[in-house]
Amino acid sequence: MTHAVTYEHIKTCKQTGARLGIVHTPHGSFETPAFMPVGTQATVKTMSPEELKAMNAGIILSNTYHLWLRPGNDVIREAGGLHKFMNWDRPILTDSGGFQVFSLSEFRNIKEEGVHFRNHMNGDKLFLSPEKAMQIQNDLGSDIMMAFDECPPYPATHEYMKSSVERTSRWAERCLEAHARPQDQGLFGIIQGGEYEDLRRQSAEDLVALDFPGYAIGGLSVGEPKDVMNRALEFTTPFMPFDKPRYLMGVGSPDSLIDGSIRGIDMFDCVLPTRIARNGTLMTSTGRLNLKNAKFKRDFTPIDEKCTCYTCTNYTRAYVHHLLRADETFGIRLTSYHNLHFLLNLMEQVRQAIREDRLGDFREEFFEAYGFNKPNAKNF
Amino acid sequence: MTHAVTYEHIKTCKQTGARLGIVHTPHGSFETPAFMPVGTQATVKTMSPEELKAMNAGIILSNTYHLWLRPGNDVIREAGGLHKFMNWDRPILTDSGGFQVFSLSEFRNIKEEGVHFRNHMNGDKLFLSPEKAMQIQNDLGSDIMMAFDECPPYPATHEYMKSSVERTSRWAERCLEAHARPQDQGLFGIIQGGEYEDLRRQSAEDLVALDFPGYAIGGLSVGEPKDVMNRALEFTTPFMPFDKPRYLMGVGSPDSLIDGSIRGIDMFDCVLPTRIARNGTLMTSTGRLNLKNAKFKRDFTPIDEKCTCYTCTNYTRAYVHHLLRADETFGIRLTSYHNLHFLLNLMEQVRQAIREDRLGDFREEFFEAYGFNKPNAKNF
Repeated sequence: MTHAVTYEHIKTCKQTGARLGIVHTPHGSFETPAFMPVGTQATVKTMSPEELKAMNAGIILSNTYHLWLRPGNDVIREAGGLHKFMNWDRPILTDSGGFQVFSLSEFRNIKEEGVHFRNHMNGDKLFLSPEKAMQIQNDLGSDIMMAFDECPPYPATHEYMKSSVERTSRWAERCLEAHARPQDQGLFGIIQGGEYEDLRRQSAEDLVALDFPGYAIGGLSVGEPKDVMNRALEFTTPFMPFDKPRYLMGVGSPDSLIDGSIRGIDMFDCVLPTRIARNGTLMTSTGRLNLKNAKFKRDFTPIDEKCTCYTCTNYTRAYVHHLLRADETFGIRLTSYHNLHFLLNLMEQVRQAIREDRLGDFREEFFEAYGFNKPNAKNF
Repeated sequence: MTHAVTYEHIKTCKQTGARLGIVHTPHGSFETPAFMPVGTQATVKTMSPEELKAMNAGIILSNTYHLWLRPGNDVIREAGGLHKFMNWDRPILTDSGGFQVFSLSEFRNIKEEGVHFRNHMNGDKLFLSPEKAMQIQNDLGSDIMMAFDECPPYPATHEYMKSSVERTSRWAERCLEAHARPQDQGLFGIIQGGEYEDLRRQSAEDLVALDFPGYAIGGLSVGEPKDVMNRALEFTTPFMPFDKPRYLMGVGSPDSLIDGSIRGIDMFDCVLPTRIARNGTLMTSTGRLNLKNAKFKRDFTPIDEKCTCYTCTNYTRAYVHHLLRADETFGIRLTSYHNLHFLLNLMEQVRQAIREDRLGDFREEFFEAYGFNKPNAKNF
């Protein structure tokens, strides 16, 4: 059958093997490698849809678990779907709720039929299953849906991970069965297996046999060292189809976006840029800074001299510092805008470097300027 | 001398006596009667300057007391003034800090030289005087500065009020003396006197003799009944010059904006629209509503069917209800935008009604639709 979501390959970087492409969806297309801003509760925190478009966001992510609990997938279905509800007409990807069940909920009980757990807000008993996750996402009407999987913690034993991967494969089949609108919404499978090469291969082969329109790599960026993540990508991607999009879930630090792209990843998402922005931490072309620091009180330069975003074009570090210190909402609007723009612009630079077959050189230049090459450089 | 701020009278409403005019300032002109959104800490809460322009805000107000304490008037002077600091190139009015000293601070000690008090944030000892209030506002570079006055609480005895009014007149003279940039910034005098007709007259005559470019009426909207306020306006405005702007401080409920305009007031300010917006309360053409109420969960209509603002054009009550319930910043952006637009649009309707000599009719229509004519109607 023809999938609702397809991948068009443009070229491969001769220096690194990174892929330049376009993902086509029912709500339009976006270039890859792409970073997806996260709009957990049907809004990318502090931002308007127009602002996201002005910074060239091609696709955003929203969270099934949160929307299921509030306002309820029935409300969003009645509104005409998530796009209409939140006034966003470009592509939307929704996760399956699985990750939140494992990271936010309490007293979870994993059975073959699904997961019993308690609502993290009010303690109510809840049940999420492959069928339920599909029904919610069908109601939301996202362009890209994610299969319901188990996300084991890191580290997990090989024995536990093997049984988990096998259950995730069985759940993936049930997701495909339950998916009511395959002509309107593309469903991606999620490859699990932790840091175990044989289990990543097993998971990938199981899922590829089911012919999803795209594949994600889950269970990374959960606390493992960066080289463990990079190695996992290297031994997993060879088992992923070349002609379908590859999505590395939950990754959004600048270094990992570049290193993931180099390893053939097309899509990324992370709350990092907006979360750290609300705490005053900004990503710049020369590394990160915390604008709440007293030294910025009289700094009348932009956050980043090289940045062309709304914040850097119109405001000084001193003004944003003042707004953050005064707990003014406009402060976190300005910092969120800047950080999202920074990562979206970084991905545009990555795509340009692929076009020019110099992503390896770009990586060296960026890492040097940002400070990732310093001893004790922190990861984000 | 030629004042930095002047009033151009366009016409008087034949039905009510309300004034249509234009106030000219160093940063441009605005039509009156005008409502001024309040940007206490160099930002109108949750809004961008571009959004304020899109809703036709002609002038905003900012608070001397807050900016003096944070980030400090020296920082704003070094930034090139408040307009540049906050990226707002239209007129700005700053108050004198007097009202906040009396409403926010503790342990205040009023002497002839000024007021000793403690910082409401950290308890530090502070001193504000006519000279200090002028110096701060000269540093801020506002188009309209306010004289430093005493704001007695309501009710106050005639005896206390009389001595207070006399001190305010002496302080007003010192303000004029201390004002360092009269060619760049217009200084308004503030008429006090509470509900006492003789004292309002005395205060007005004292200040008018000093030839300020504009006059405010202070000490109203501080808890007195609405008819007390209206009466005070009626017996005060006859002593105010016809050819200078008249500003009623701290007033922003829709009924008071209309009733003040009818009594010859040109300028108003209030935190009401943004403050209630953050609590989910919206002003609409058919009265107010609280969007947090459960009944709006599945209401897929705009906040106000008759409204043309960004919020009402693009979003439903159900969506904004969801954002407010979920504590999402975008929710208070949307409600703040709507309420500010509502009052700015109301003032445009008031000006149009003056042009057409039918502000009395407009008042009746508006009050009826909004519900002010109902028994037990609440104020705003």
